[in-house]
Parts: sequence; C-alpha cells; structure tokens
Amino acid sequence: MKVAGKPMRTIWRERDGVGVIDQTALPHRFATVHLASLDDAAQAIAAMIVRGAPLIGAAAAYGVALAMHADAGDAALDAACARLAATRPTAMNLRWALDAMRAHLLPLPAPARPVAAFARADAIADQDVAINCEIGGHGLALIDAAFRRTGRRVDILTHCNAGWLATVDWGTALAPVYRAFDAGIPVHVWVDETRPRNQGAALTAWELGAHGVPHTVITDNAGGHLMQRGQVDLCLVGSDRTTAAGDVANKIGTYLKALAAADNGVPFYVALPSPTIDWSIDDGLASIPIEERDGAEVAEIAGALADGSIARVRLVPPGSAVANPAFDVTPARLVTGLITERGVCVASRAGLAGLFPERTSLPPTSPSHRFATGPSLSAPGGGEGRGEVGR
Amino acid sequence: MKVAGKPMRTIWRERDGVGVIDQTALPHRFATVHLASLDDAAQAIAAMIVRGAPLIGAAAAYGVALAMHADAGDAALDAACARLAATRPTAMNLRWALDAMRAHLLPLPAPARPVAAFARADAIADQDVAINCEIGGHGLALIDAAFRRTGRRVDILTHCNAGWLATVDWGTALAPVYRAFDAGIPVHVWVDETRPRNQGAALTAWELGAHGVPHTVITDNAGGHLMQRGQVDLCLVGSDRTTAAGDVANKIGTYLKALAAADNGVPFYVALPSPTIDWSIDDGLASIPIEERDGAEVAEIAGALADGSIARVRLVPPGSAVANPAFDVTPARLVTGLITERGVCVASRAGLAGLFPERTSLPPTSPSHRFATGPSLSAPGGGEGRGEVGR
Repeated sequence: MKVAGKPMRTIWRERDGVGVIDQTALPHRFATVHLASLDDAAQAIAAMIVRGAPLIGAAAAYGVALAMHADAGDAALDAACARLAATRPTAMNLRWALDAMRAHLLPLPAPARPVAAFARADAIADQDVAINCEIGGHGLALIDAAFRRTGRRVDILTHCNAGWLATVDWGTALAPVYRAFDAGIPVHVWVDETRPRNQGAALTAWELGAHGVPHTVITDNAGGHLMQRGQVDLCLVGSDRTTAAGDVANKIGTYLKALAAADNGVPFYVALPSPTIDWSIDDGLASIPIEERDGAEVAEIAGALADGSIARVRLVPPGSAVANPAFDVTPARLVTGLITERGVCVASRAGLAGLFPERTSLPPTSPSHRFATGPSLSAPGGGEGRGEVGR
Repeated sequence: MKVAGKPMRTIWRERDGVGVIDQTALPHRFATVHLASLDDAAQAIAAMIVRGAPLIGAAAAYGVALAMHADAGDAALDAACARLAATRPTAMNLRWALDAMRAHLLPLPAPARPVAAFARADAIADQDVAINCEIGGHGLALIDAAFRRTGRRVDILTHCNAGWLATVDWGTALAPVYRAFDAGIPVHVWVDETRPRNQGAALTAWELGAHGVPHTVITDNAGGHLMQRGQVDLCLVGSDRTTAAGDVANKIGTYLKALAAADNGVPFYVALPSPTIDWSIDDGLASIPIEERDGAEVAEIAGALADGSIARVRLVPPGSAVANPAFDVTPARLVTGLITERGVCVASRAGLAGLFPERTSLPPTSPSHRFATGPSLSAPGGGEGRGEVGR
C-alpha cells in the first residue's frame, strides 16, 4: 500500500540486501531498516521490527537468502534455518517458510543457491501478496454492494491489525478496504484500539492513514454502541485459526463485536487465507486452546511522550493480579461469511467444503498443520500463530 | 472500606476541616488531602481530587459548611453555592447537594449555620452510605446463593468503578462484593480496565486491593472469553441512568458484557440507588443521549514511569481521528435484575413498579430530575452525570 503517496510493501529487495519497515517505531515514527546479513534478519524478527505471521515468514525466507549469499554450503543452510527458527519459537509461518526454503535449496549445487534462494523468497512474498489481493477482490464486492444499497459512505469496523503491516502487502481483513478505497468507493474504518497491545491504535490507524483511508480510532468498548446507533455497515476482521465448521479464533475481543453485530443486524465478515483453516477440527471452543500471555502487556503500555521519545508507563496497582488471554473464539453462528482467496462462503462445514472440495476428504491432520505442536497456532499465510508476540 | 486494614470513607470530618483521599494519585500513590476552606473544597472538586457523583455531592456539602465557618451570612452562602456549582458545571449530585444545603441553611439565623451546615453535610454523606449498604445487603444474597449453589469461589465481573471511591462508602456495584467478602464468602472480581479512562484498572483494582478483596485486572476485550469458559458466575455493574422500563445507561462497553452474559447464561445484575431511575422514560436507546467526550482521553493515557513519577503518553498516530462516546445503553432484555436499596427486581416497568409503587403514578418529569438540562444525566445518589469527568 502507499506511504506518503508512494507504493510500498513491508519487505523488499534493495541493493546488497533487504529493506523492511521498522514496526517498533510505529505509529510515532516511520523508519526503514536495511538487512544485509542473516544476523540482521534474525535480529529484525526477534526484536519485532517485523511482525505478523505472513511477514515473518517472508522475512525468514530472505534471511536464508542473505545467509546463502555469504556461505552457500549445507552446514550454513542448516545453521541459518536453525538460527531463524529460534527467533520466535512458536511462529508457524516462520517454520513453514524455512522448510520451503530448505526443501528448495538442498537439492541444488551450492553455487546456484544464492540466486535461487532470493528467487524463492521473492516467490513466498509474492504468493502472500497474491492471496491477499484475491481476498481483497472478494471483499470489495461486499463493500461495493453496501455502497450501492445505501448510496453513502460505507462504515466498516475492524479489530486488531489484519492489515498490510501484518503481511507483505494488502493485509487480510483490510485488503477489501484498500481495494474499495482505490476503486473510489467512499469508505471509513472504525479502528478498535485493541488492548492490550493496541495493534489497532498503533498499526491499523497508521497504515490506513499512510494510504489515505479515512478512519477513526475508538476504544474496544465503543463498537457495540456504534452498532446500536446504526453507525457500522459491516465488520471485517482477520482470523488466526478457523475450524472446518467456521468457528473463528482471532484477537481477544473479536467475539464481543460479533455478538454486537448479531444483536444489531450488522454483517460480520472474517477474511482469511485458506491455510488458516484447520480442517481437523469443528468446534473451536472445545478444540482451540487459548494462549495466556504476560500480564505486563495489560499492566503497562508504551507511548510517545510530549518530546516524541517513547516511554512505558504502568496502569495497574502493583499488588493487583492481571490476566491476559490473547485470543477468543467466535462461534460460526455469529459469522455472516468467510472471505477467502477463492471467494466468500457461509461459515459452516458445507460452506467451506463448497469452496475447498479437495480438503473435505483429507485425514484429520492435514499437511499444512504438520508443525501444530502448540496452541492457537495459525498455518502459513494466515493471521498469526501462538508465538506472534509482535502482532 | 478498609485501607491497609483501617476502615475509611472517601471523605471525613477532621480537626479544622474535612479530609479526602486524593484520587488523582491513585493507583500509584495513596495520599489524603485536608480541606480547610471553601477554596480548598472547590479546588478538590475541580481538580478531581474527589470524583464520582455521590462523593462530589458530599464534598460540595462540606464545602458549604467550610464557607459558613468563615462567614455565615446570606451573601456568603450564595457565593459558596455559586462557586461550588461552577467547579463541575454539569454534575447533577453537586447541584442537588448544594440546593439541599441552601434550603436547610437559609431559614436559620446566621450564628446557627456553621454547626447546622456540618450536621447537614454529615447527613448527606451518611445517607449515601446507608443507601449503598442496603444495596450491598440485597446483592450479598445473590452472591451467597451462587456460593451455596457451587460451593466454590464466586467469580464476579465488573466494569468501570462503581465502588466506594465513587461514593462516600461501600459503592454501588461493589457494595455486594464487600458485604460478601466481609461475611467470609470467597469472592474474586474480574476487573475490566475500562478504557479510555481506566477507572477499573486504576480505581476499582486499587480499592479492592486496599480492602483485601482478591481480584484480577483484565482488558475490556477479555470478559466474553472468560464467560465462554465458565469463569464468570455473575456480572455486577453500576448505572448512570436507568429508565422506568429497566434499560440501563452505564459506562461505554457495559452493553458488550451484557451481550456476552446473555449468550453464556451468566446472570447480569445492575446495582443502582433509586434516584438514578428516570421515571419519565422507557426506551433508553431512543431517549438517552450519549455524551461524546474529548478524543484525547483515547489518544493519550497517563501512568507511572519506572521512577514512580506520572507521565502521559500518546497512543494514536497524530493524523488519526478519534471518537469517544462515554456511555452506552444496555436494553432491559439483557439485564437479569436491578439491585436497589429496596431490593432486587426484574428489569422491567412492572419490576420497578413493584419496588417503587409510589413512583409509578408520578408525572413524566419527576422532582429528582429538575436539573435535567443536559444529556446522560444521573440523579442525586446515582452513578455519575454527564459532567462526571473524573469518574
């Protein structure tokens, strides 16, 4: 998407290496970081300069390519993969991308690996962009229909950051918004701040603003009230894991917005790349364990002081306990539709089977989930896994 | 309630004046402030050293008493009332208390006024305590029943601060919790942090901790998930204005928790002193205007730096719009029961009429709402009015 009028991705090839946006500085400062080596790439992932499952996968792939540039031997390849895998121990896309790189490079003679590695990393990044662009096209039709029905601005509520910053470009839930905006449809986004990590207020607001999309930041408490007052035309959120029956695990608080949407007749759509679908389970509440994260994320918050420097302040009394469940499950009955790269379907086993007939006969554990060792995992191309601390 | 084992109110008589807890320093520092004059009282209200509608009313009453101590003439009485009324222009309890003081003192000879003023202020404070204690007793029965049913800790979710810090003592929604805790029933409170002003994380957590009540701070996003997992036995919230049919206007986000409670079969109770009931309206969504507050409350937040000093940090990109509706309306259909000083009733016209038969024949505008010039107002003794900026 655009930053100050100039099209950008979150990661790109540049002279002698790779460039990324420094997401730790957002929304207060826009800066890019040059990655010239495996070390640089590993540190960018570990320090959350890049975050969001698809983007981490692409960054890891480029990290392998940078390693091959320095030493294309088998030992160097193994060491690079091990080093990158350790940066975010439970990130699923990271492992998926590293496996893809390794499988692609190992059969090649060492001298061919540097060029092949960059080409494969480019392909991983491009594939993410293509999937998200397709999702955007299908979601665009929904927004366009709302605009034609009312003839006025389409107000869309979103939660967390399922935007281009979490991916290589377009995003998942925000892809339809960008497609609609670029097509000249008047859109406006209500941005849930998304406590505790404030990905909405910090990242979604920033990326929408950078591309020029009208938006308004609200507290997570406000969305129900806006829906009661008819100020939301549709909700669009991402997904970290979607069951074969259409239950959706996403950032904590998504369920509350789905309840409010159902109570007020507001369509509630979930945008997801098909790899986030876990074909092995139906009941999300029973089968998806929810990650409990560090209470410090709730008790403290970082922001910009008046002089522009970043400070962390404490919000909770020292003696108070804090709980921090990171995701919740929205039952399929509250989801109006799932927006995938193959189209929009009802959130049900039948709906998903209609779009993905080849998956319905698969055994319970599908190949895309072979790394499914931890809870709240998401598959490659999806939102974020259990370890996506930086989202 | 207790602070470090010592029973306290939020406001008390002390040598040569009145003492209050400095709520601007909470939760990071506990300090008390001595009010020796009308000036001191006016400044304490204006600077939000005291906040919460019932407490503001009591503080204003004591402010008049302090003024009478210096000059008990008619002109001084009028000036004191005018001065105090201007501190928080739209606070309803403030006006109610000032009118009560003026009506009580004007007929008296000036020399009798200082003593009479303090006595009347004491009575206003004591009346608030008595109402809240009654609410606590009726709510205690509900908590006790839950404990007898399950035989284990009773988990209660609350939103915002409807605790003793907002009143003279006990609080409204938290009065049943304190009564249960003091009676030896094992209770634990899930404290919604309550963005944007974080009254839950800052004030509710602090006052529960000070009295020794087990509690856990959570983001506003988390409550639905906890209810899905069976970790909430009942919800207890306050009210800023309750319609004659049982619709409840309360802090923004209350509606989302009521939806989650209904979806998961969790009882959802609202505790309110009867003066917060607006007998003139039935439909809260249609009739209660919702205050839109300064976006800076969402865009910035104050907390403690590592050295203990308080700093304000910005959370939102400079170019992003911010909206900040302060209250929402929970329809009566989502409310399990209303807990008043006269008992618990169904949230309906019939339910309220059963407890307050004398009010059902009143004309549309009741005397307790004669100051109803602004939106989202609450009546004396209630939660907070439109102007209760400090809650």
